[in-house]
Amino acid sequence: MSRIDEILAGNERAAARLMRDLDDRLPSAIAELRLLYPHTGRARVIGVTGNPGAGKSTVVDGLIERYRGAGKRVGVVAVDPTSPFTGGAILGDRIRMQRHATDPGVFIRSLATRGHLGGLSRSTCDVVSVLDAMGCDVVLVETVGVGQDEIDVMAATDTTVVVTVPGLGDDIQAIKAGILEIADVLVVNKADREGADRAVRDLLHMLELRHGSGAREVEIVKTIALRGDGLELLVAAIDRHRVETAGADGRERGRRRAAAQLAELIEEGLAEVTRAAFVERGGIDALADDIAARRTDPYGVAHEIIAALLSGAHRR
Amino acid sequence: MSRIDEILAGNERAAARLMRDLDDRLPSAIAELRLLYPHTGRARVIGVTGNPGAGKSTVVDGLIERYRGAGKRVGVVAVDPTSPFTGGAILGDRIRMQRHATDPGVFIRSLATRGHLGGLSRSTCDVVSVLDAMGCDVVLVETVGVGQDEIDVMAATDTTVVVTVPGLGDDIQAIKAGILEIADVLVVNKADREGADRAVRDLLHMLELRHGSGAREVEIVKTIALRGDGLELLVAAIDRHRVETAGADGRERGRRRAAAQLAELIEEGLAEVTRAAFVERGGIDALADDIAARRTDPYGVAHEIIAALLSGAHRR
Repeated sequence: MSRIDEILAGNERAAARLMRDLDDRLPSAIAELRLLYPHTGRARVIGVTGNPGAGKSTVVDGLIERYRGAGKRVGVVAVDPTSPFTGGAILGDRIRMQRHATDPGVFIRSLATRGHLGGLSRSTCDVVSVLDAMGCDVVLVETVGVGQDEIDVMAATDTTVVVTVPGLGDDIQAIKAGILEIADVLVVNKADREGADRAVRDLLHMLELRHGSGAREVEIVKTIALRGDGLELLVAAIDRHRVETAGADGRERGRRRAAAQLAELIEEGLAEVTRAAFVERGGIDALADDIAARRTDPYGVAHEIIAALLSGAHRR
Repeated sequence: MSRIDEILAGNERAAARLMRDLDDRLPSAIAELRLLYPHTGRARVIGVTGNPGAGKSTVVDGLIERYRGAGKRVGVVAVDPTSPFTGGAILGDRIRMQRHATDPGVFIRSLATRGHLGGLSRSTCDVVSVLDAMGCDVVLVETVGVGQDEIDVMAATDTTVVVTVPGLGDDIQAIKAGILEIADVLVVNKADREGADRAVRDLLHMLELRHGSGAREVEIVKTIALRGDGLELLVAAIDRHRVETAGADGRERGRRRAAAQLAELIEEGLAEVTRAAFVERGGIDALADDIAARRTDPYGVAHEIIAALLSGAHRR
């Protein structure tokens, strides 16, 4: 039985091995992913993002439990962006989720940023595709933070759930504004805290500012995920979003997702040949030295390298 | 007199026209920038970033005043990232700075994000180079937010000043951690607020965690920028950073900056030919449709386009 067949039959070990090979960018692994691709598009991909400390992991944990209770096979992609400077990962209270790790109906995979050219959303797409092909009915994609990386990652999901909590100050309005734009369902978690109703009102107000008339309404759900309160309502809201976006809206989303994935794959491939071009010219440090000392200029060097790449001199 | 000569003689109008042409990516403008490049590297480039609401604009305003008082010519680059979704700009209280707009010794230029391929840090480098060539002694680069874009922009500066305020909650620790990594000087603004000393202690603690022994110390300056308090201390701290980084440290920084700029210029050039390749294949929407409908897969399409680009088929 080929690894492809094993994965299509739902073999988790085969899927994990393929994911590892994809991390290493083995050409054979990419060839396998191509063969799996026609078998994807069936899983429901749900993103969960929001402010650090909002309780995203607890919400994800509750969703896993409910989808498992409904007999669904669940994949989880936990995206841990690390600082580009330290390489350290923020793990938070993700440990809780590990109690599902022994459930054969749950497959959990962590992803970390690998520097600027690492392609976190590309990696997320790859992992989601493998989980989809191996028969997961639901794939939950959870991020730690709320930066641009996480917003990019959320482009790979069908429904984006943004989790917030009462009592966040004005200082993060700018961030909230960016993340609000991508929310399909909003969760006010820890709703037993003071200010929960005010948080809902504030979000409603922000949504009004965002939407013109006639735009799709974003549902707001109050939860106390730690106690399981409100999670059934959240599942129902996600379901309604699925039904509402089954038509043209969903196709448009699929198209945008495919476009973003394609663009990123090409960018990554070109970055690879660019790195090779730097090495051929003595390394980027030597080039940068010449630029910094004003012996040459970055515009000229960039132009020369691009011309060389496109002339076929760097054909692979 | 050519525009190059006009700019080198300090003509602001000529500089503004070149910046506008650079925005439009006119090849002639890039050629001019290449000619200006050997005349750059003299200005002191100071970045000011930090949490929204921390009073960055007021700090920048105070710095302009002090550098003008010392007879220096000052350039200001105000970087306004806009949401990639709405196109709306966050202007904040930047209006205050406009009182310097009539001072012939101050040149203010705003920059906004132009979508994913817009190259905000590339634009910042270009504008800084022009300001440098036209004889600005100091160039202040101010950002609105504290996301990855802003961190990238700060790579173009010699000294990065990170402005924060007392009383920011734990929820933004993750963001603070990322921005702390790039700080050369830390400012606790609005230091008359409760909790200023605690904020300083917290920052000291975070810096300790960040640094191994022997690392350069990051100075922390308390200011009340609205009243002008502490700004002399800030100028002195920036000066000390300049002196300390005049040697090997500064050269390394210049090298990293050149490397980042070169990489971004190449990325941007390749993105342009990639867009042309999409158009030749019926547009990215048609390609994305085929992928979303599983008639093809993104890995295969990406591979074909990269191969075509590198074969010389798309020579410019």
